[in-house]
Amino acid sequence: MQKELVEKLFSNNHRAVARSISIIESDNLQSAELLKTIYTRVGNAYRIGITGPPGAGKSTITNQLTKLYRKQNKKVGIIAVDPTSPFTGGALLGDRVRMSEIGMDDGVFIRSMATRGSLGGLSKRAIDAADVLDAAGFDLVIFETVGVGQSELDIAEAADTTVVILVPESGDAVQAMKAGLMEIADFIVMNKSDRPGSQQAIASLQTILMMRDHDEKSWMMNIIKSVASENTGIEEIASEIERHHNYIKGKKLFIKGRERRMKKRIKDIVENKIKDELWSTNSENYLTSSLEKVVLGNLSPYHIAEEIIDNFKNQN
Amino acid sequence: MQKELVEKLFSNNHRAVARSISIIESDNLQSAELLKTIYTRVGNAYRIGITGPPGAGKSTITNQLTKLYRKQNKKVGIIAVDPTSPFTGGALLGDRVRMSEIGMDDGVFIRSMATRGSLGGLSKRAIDAADVLDAAGFDLVIFETVGVGQSELDIAEAADTTVVILVPESGDAVQAMKAGLMEIADFIVMNKSDRPGSQQAIASLQTILMMRDHDEKSWMMNIIKSVASENTGIEEIASEIERHHNYIKGKKLFIKGRERRMKKRIKDIVENKIKDELWSTNSENYLTSSLEKVVLGNLSPYHIAEEIIDNFKNQN
Repeated sequence: MQKELVEKLFSNNHRAVARSISIIESDNLQSAELLKTIYTRVGNAYRIGITGPPGAGKSTITNQLTKLYRKQNKKVGIIAVDPTSPFTGGALLGDRVRMSEIGMDDGVFIRSMATRGSLGGLSKRAIDAADVLDAAGFDLVIFETVGVGQSELDIAEAADTTVVILVPESGDAVQAMKAGLMEIADFIVMNKSDRPGSQQAIASLQTILMMRDHDEKSWMMNIIKSVASENTGIEEIASEIERHHNYIKGKKLFIKGRERRMKKRIKDIVENKIKDELWSTNSENYLTSSLEKVVLGNLSPYHIAEEIIDNFKNQN
Repeated sequence: MQKELVEKLFSNNHRAVARSISIIESDNLQSAELLKTIYTRVGNAYRIGITGPPGAGKSTITNQLTKLYRKQNKKVGIIAVDPTSPFTGGALLGDRVRMSEIGMDDGVFIRSMATRGSLGGLSKRAIDAADVLDAAGFDLVIFETVGVGQSELDIAEAADTTVVILVPESGDAVQAMKAGLMEIADFIVMNKSDRPGSQQAIASLQTILMMRDHDEKSWMMNIIKSVASENTGIEEIASEIERHHNYIKGKKLFIKGRERRMKKRIKDIVENKIKDELWSTNSENYLTSSLEKVVLGNLSPYHIAEEIIDNFKNQN
């Protein structure tokens, strides 16, 4: 059955793409098998991360960019990561709203992923899903994720080019820096740049950008202005993505960047697997039953830790 | 040598305390041995976490509380966690300023710990250092830590009673909630409550507190007003700490809370040790040398991950 699924996936069949991502999201043995099977076809899609604070216009920019890429006949896969909101219905609602605009197009596939209360594994699932889209033949994979929280930043950073969207109201540049957004940005978009305070926000960003160390001849981070709701600045964003793509290709940074991210990804896979095996029912029970003795001072936490490690090693 | 050190530590010799914490901070084998040796004497100190945004007055409140506890003849050990600031000299400067005020008192020991650029292990070192102070016979251990960043919050939460200090200017209650401060607070202090906006800030906090679910008959979180620089409200803070202490003792939550925190602590110790062993030179080298093949699509990341896990298991 999986062979048939994989064949359909390779021919860009959207139902097979959806089914494959569902397998990924279930995160079981089947998921690792699938990813191993499709891996020879992974690596051709260019990956773009779009992030920023809530309300910055990430979805609008993603939609407009997608329309532009479609005019160039490029296939676009979108992974939208929304923190689950009990009030709005989170990811699902977002999906439906978009579907009506760009989702009916055969060259576009949109999948929303929600945190669903579990923090762990979100970035793993999103990056695995990008492999599925990549293997299915999408030319571009866009990660759209809110720039709040470590795993969301991890996803945005898992791209070849990471675009940070800000708006004049999204607080000053120092806040963006604190949130870790400046570190992952390849360039910045000041969206809603027709609003008051826009020039001041850009000036404060520029001051910070000038203060950062940068190697000589290194990438110059630009600030692009846009009013996405009026489709203004979208071509400039696409050009800047292209400029960054050419820059990293020219500097041999393209493969280097992918290797650096792959290293982190493999480490995460290994550590999570080991952690799962480590906290099997046995060691969890042993730990729980030892707590009282430790808290009462009869045993040290280091003593229990060593026993758990020894048991884990001996059982393998 | 260590036997002598431990004997001096048990008799509250401050030089032995300082030396023991230095061993903890070096985080080597000697450190685990020391902690195992002293553990029978750990568990008597009551642990208080004092946290909040920068500039909220955490140090002032810690100092005033310490003076109050000294009048009650209680010995106070303080672990102050400052993020290293290259501009102010971070932890060290803070130490000297305090020393002049309360540090000359024999019943007080202050140790500052800085992140020193390395994020990992800070909360582990701080919690281990609290064990040293506990074993040395301090009646109270105060963790004073800025409420920004996960490891700082982890430290503040490693206390029996956690006090969150806010000021009218520290942003609205929603921000405090986002920062995770409301989740770890056992009660809140509105410091600098003589400033404008104080009443409004308290009202907004109260609204949020009322919105939170709480079990019936559960702890009622209060908001205490203080002007620490004028020594106003300090006795009220001490009383509220005492009230919380009595509450958790009465509800058998005291031991339960310590067990819950100990479980997390032991899990951290185990996982960090395993991670260290896992990323030995061999597996790190193997991973690095495989990256190119993975990025070019010749091998899947899951394939490499499985090889690393198998090698790790077989070597033990």
